[in-house]
Amino acid sequence: MDINILLFEDFEPLDVFGPSEMFSFVDEYTVHYFSFVGGIVTGKHGLEIVTKSVKEIDPTQILLIPGGMGTRTLVDNMAYINALTNLIAQCSYCLSVCTGSALTAKTGLLDGLYATSNKNAFEWVAGLSSEVNWVRSARWVVDQKFYTSSGVSAGMDMALGFIADTLGEDRAYDVANRVEYIWNREREVDPFAVEPENLQ
Amino acid sequence: MDINILLFEDFEPLDVFGPSEMFSFVDEYTVHYFSFVGGIVTGKHGLEIVTKSVKEIDPTQILLIPGGMGTRTLVDNMAYINALTNLIAQCSYCLSVCTGSALTAKTGLLDGLYATSNKNAFEWVAGLSSEVNWVRSARWVVDQKFYTSSGVSAGMDMALGFIADTLGEDRAYDVANRVEYIWNREREVDPFAVEPENLQ
Repeated sequence: MDINILLFEDFEPLDVFGPSEMFSFVDEYTVHYFSFVGGIVTGKHGLEIVTKSVKEIDPTQILLIPGGMGTRTLVDNMAYINALTNLIAQCSYCLSVCTGSALTAKTGLLDGLYATSNKNAFEWVAGLSSEVNWVRSARWVVDQKFYTSSGVSAGMDMALGFIADTLGEDRAYDVANRVEYIWNREREVDPFAVEPENLQ
Repeated sequence: MDINILLFEDFEPLDVFGPSEMFSFVDEYTVHYFSFVGGIVTGKHGLEIVTKSVKEIDPTQILLIPGGMGTRTLVDNMAYINALTNLIAQCSYCLSVCTGSALTAKTGLLDGLYATSNKNAFEWVAGLSSEVNWVRSARWVVDQKFYTSSGVSAGMDMALGFIADTLGEDRAYDVANRVEYIWNREREVDPFAVEPENLQ
C-alpha cells in the first residue's frame, strides 16, 4: 500500500516526517510525497521538499494530511478544499496530523464523526465545523476510515497505532524499537488535553 | 545562533526533522540545511531536500550531523571525513543523532570523550574507534562541545536537552508543550540500551 503524503506551502515538518519515519520501516507501506502542483514545496522555515503532482497519485491508497500554518489560508480556499474532498472521498484511509484535521473537516467528510486536532489550536479548528464531534482529550482518534491526531508529535503515536491496527501490535512495537521511540500506546491518554473538565 | 544541519545521501529523515522541529520553536536558533555539494540531497526512501553548499556555512555556529545508512560508506571516504574534521573543529557545538556519531568518531575529535549512538547499530559504531568512551546506556551524552544521541527518536530528546542547557529548562518544556512532545528528560534513562549488564 502507498502512504501518500499531501504537502502544501508552510506545512509543519514533523507532522510529515514523524509518521513517514515509522512507515519507512514497514515493508508493506511505501511513502510518497505529493502536492497538487508538484515540484518544490516549502515547509515551515524555508525547508524545501521535492513533491510529485497529484496527477500521479493512486487515490485509492492511504492519504496523510499534515498540519501547519499553511492550513490557516487553505481552509478558505474552496478550489483547494474541493480538490481535497475528491481525494479523500476515494482513499482507503485518511490520516491527518495536527491542524491537518482543519482541512479534512472543511471537506464535510468528517461530519458526524469523532476527530481531534492540535491542542494549541483547538478552538480555531473546532470552530471550523460544528458537525464534527471534536474530542478535546485524545492522543489520536479513529472513526471509520479517518485517523486524526493531536499536535505535531502525536502523529508518530498515531502512525504506530495505524500500523498496529492494520498489521498487528507486534509490528508497531518492532518499528518503535528500531527507531528507539517510546510509543505512547494509549490513544485516550493525552497530557496536552484542553479543558480536561470537558472530557468526552 | 544558526543550527547548521549537514545532510548527505541516504540520511535518516527523523534524525534531521525531529531536532529541527524543536529548534524551529526557539527564536534564538535558525535552522539551515547544508551539504558539501549543495543542491538536492536524497534521504532514505527517495525523500529529496534542497540544501545549501557548505561554502555558505558559518562554521563557528552549531553543527548537527544526522545518521542513516549513508554513514556506512562515508566513514571510509577520507576526503569527506577530512572536510568534516575541518567543520567540526570550528563549530561551537557539535550535535549528532543516531549513527551520525560514527562520522564524528572517524574525525578523531571524539577521542577520549564519552559518546553514544544508535543501539541497533552500536557494535558497528563502537568498532570504528576504540579511542572513544562509548556509552551503552544513555538517551544522549554530553561531553565538552559534543552532544551525541541514541537512535533516531532520541535526537528529539537531545535537542530539548540542548535547549535546556543553553536557554533554560523552562524553554525546553515550552517547546515540548507546543509540539505536544512527551519529553524523556533524563538522558541516563535509555529503554533501548544494549547489554545493560555493562552499564557505564
